[in-house]
Amino acid sequence: MRTVYLDNNATTRVAPEAVEAMTPYLTEFYGNPSSVHRLGAKPAEAVRAARRQVAVLFGCSSEEVVFTSCGTESNNLAIAGVLESAPGKQHIVTTTVEHAAINRVVDRMESKGYGVTRVPVDGDGRLDFGALEGAIREDTALVAAMWANNETGVLFPIDEIAAVTRNRGVPLLVDAVTAAGKVPLDLRRVPVDLLAISGHKLHAPKGVGVLFCREGVPLTSAMQGAGQERGRRPGTENVPGIVGMGVACELAAEKTGYYDREVRRLRDRLESGLAAAVPDITVTGAAVPRVPNTSNVVFRGVNAGEMLVALDGAGICASAGTACKSASGQVSGVLLAMGLEPEDAAAAIRFSLSAWTTENDIDYVVDAVPPLVAKLRSA
Amino acid sequence: MRTVYLDNNATTRVAPEAVEAMTPYLTEFYGNPSSVHRLGAKPAEAVRAARRQVAVLFGCSSEEVVFTSCGTESNNLAIAGVLESAPGKQHIVTTTVEHAAINRVVDRMESKGYGVTRVPVDGDGRLDFGALEGAIREDTALVAAMWANNETGVLFPIDEIAAVTRNRGVPLLVDAVTAAGKVPLDLRRVPVDLLAISGHKLHAPKGVGVLFCREGVPLTSAMQGAGQERGRRPGTENVPGIVGMGVACELAAEKTGYYDREVRRLRDRLESGLAAAVPDITVTGAAVPRVPNTSNVVFRGVNAGEMLVALDGAGICASAGTACKSASGQVSGVLLAMGLEPEDAAAAIRFSLSAWTTENDIDYVVDAVPPLVAKLRSA
Repeated sequence: MRTVYLDNNATTRVAPEAVEAMTPYLTEFYGNPSSVHRLGAKPAEAVRAARRQVAVLFGCSSEEVVFTSCGTESNNLAIAGVLESAPGKQHIVTTTVEHAAINRVVDRMESKGYGVTRVPVDGDGRLDFGALEGAIREDTALVAAMWANNETGVLFPIDEIAAVTRNRGVPLLVDAVTAAGKVPLDLRRVPVDLLAISGHKLHAPKGVGVLFCREGVPLTSAMQGAGQERGRRPGTENVPGIVGMGVACELAAEKTGYYDREVRRLRDRLESGLAAAVPDITVTGAAVPRVPNTSNVVFRGVNAGEMLVALDGAGICASAGTACKSASGQVSGVLLAMGLEPEDAAAAIRFSLSAWTTENDIDYVVDAVPPLVAKLRSA
Repeated sequence: MRTVYLDNNATTRVAPEAVEAMTPYLTEFYGNPSSVHRLGAKPAEAVRAARRQVAVLFGCSSEEVVFTSCGTESNNLAIAGVLESAPGKQHIVTTTVEHAAINRVVDRMESKGYGVTRVPVDGDGRLDFGALEGAIREDTALVAAMWANNETGVLFPIDEIAAVTRNRGVPLLVDAVTAAGKVPLDLRRVPVDLLAISGHKLHAPKGVGVLFCREGVPLTSAMQGAGQERGRRPGTENVPGIVGMGVACELAAEKTGYYDREVRRLRDRLESGLAAAVPDITVTGAAVPRVPNTSNVVFRGVNAGEMLVALDGAGICASAGTACKSASGQVSGVLLAMGLEPEDAAAAIRFSLSAWTTENDIDYVVDAVPPLVAKLRSA
């Protein structure tokens, strides 16, 4: 049976170019980059080259790139590292729709006594920008906001947020896990201080992430050990993963235009096709700027868990909110924060495309979904 | 030119069986294990299978295996997680010869107000067991000690230490990064509470580690995020790395006997060959039990940094202390803690073998080293 993979916000196929580049570092070039002998030299150079590739995607310097093990670690390191570096400041500004890798860290700091302001969004997922501006205080240690929402694809106005945080002298952490590779992240132009990305969300392998940390931003290492990553992230470098990340970032930089043009066209074709064929559905955040690959569709009256099983039966891979929430059956906190009724939030399916998605894939989904929805609604 | 790799305590060649097992998860089976659709099912099953393979090596249950990104993270998670779970206890017992992944974490906790007792070793690296027993107090939150020293291979009597900590009701963390795969780690028999290993030190890839956490031992997660690893380590699982780790642990369990017999024989052949051919050398810790693969040799009057370059010129990969210290040119703190004179510590080379090391490799080194030492000594 045909498989149509529309769950690229959960994880992506590793780019064959990345696998090919990694393979020698899983086999013959297995040395430790810190070793001074011949087997250390080549992995060390490979890590340097990958760092430059990531820096090109971000528009930053190699020294500002910290390799980590995943997006969750990047976000955790950024928050812990900034707060630890400024113990006199005990207030955090974030939003109501962040990923668990930010909101659960912030929750924990709140339980330790930090003040937290969670800036709300409206029904389209639009940030209350005035509320964010007003939330920043003298003792604000950090503003943490995502570039694109992982469930809806809604973009926050990071340019404007960064202008405010820069003006107020407060460090800004941006979770760019969903945005990276899909919209330009030019950190020369946008004064973000810290930015987290995950390898496996942009066609690098699982097990590698990056934290951009702008030169001069104080960051205490969350872990202690040997001095890798200039002391910001100890542990022997995951050379194959880092090599794959470098290649994936190079490819992502080349493909951003393709996402904006072609992936967006396919995503829009999916949405208009479903809207024409299925009564009583809503595309979440359709009225506001979104990353080009993400579509969150409320199939009113349908249970998302049952719908996922039915989709899987038709060979269509999608999710309800995040991957982990799919497994647990929880209703999306993001959609509830946008003001959706619980029964609508429980009827939302996320389709997320990649540069591999074809027009045939989309047409297959548009054909397959209406009878599935009709069946579930009549059950 | 021939390359003889005797730096296996820095990192190891990935077992071909591990690479082969990983490859499908870098290519076709790229799904997120948390996804409920077809592409999530196979990675989820692969992670479960790898967890069982690790559990067999340790003699523990699958539920006690926490996958991390590296040995450094495993040790950091264990220390932070235990201390956070017992905030009323503010004292740590460790030793003077731990790896940076333990001693720098402990240093940091000391700077935050924890009391620390560092138990010394003698000139052979033998732990002062009475001092360790005497150091445990009512408010001791953790005892942290390595199973085998990464620089000298010297084994600590973990059985006896674990009997004491169990008796006193204090959690014991064992850094088994160097010991794993080289000596039996039967956690059914030895009541260790937490144990850290690193994939790339036992022929799994870089980018994966394990923390064993015994059932019932309270461990607060160091990072927050989605609920992977039963909430103990969030972040999408590094499926290919975890699969490689599982295979490597299965192979390691099979090869422990080979290490004890054959790798030990080769290591001893290296040591006796060098002792016969090079005047004025000492094997560190030769008088005490060591892992079978490690040989730390003081070439009196030679600068270890220059010696490494000369060895590399002859195709021999070794290190001076740890890999990262090789790069920085620092003198080994482990050897100084054993009471070696600084000039002897600065003349120490670590040779570390693997199951791939051959008799020809050893004979080549025994032939190549004496003229190199003579040349360096006469310079």
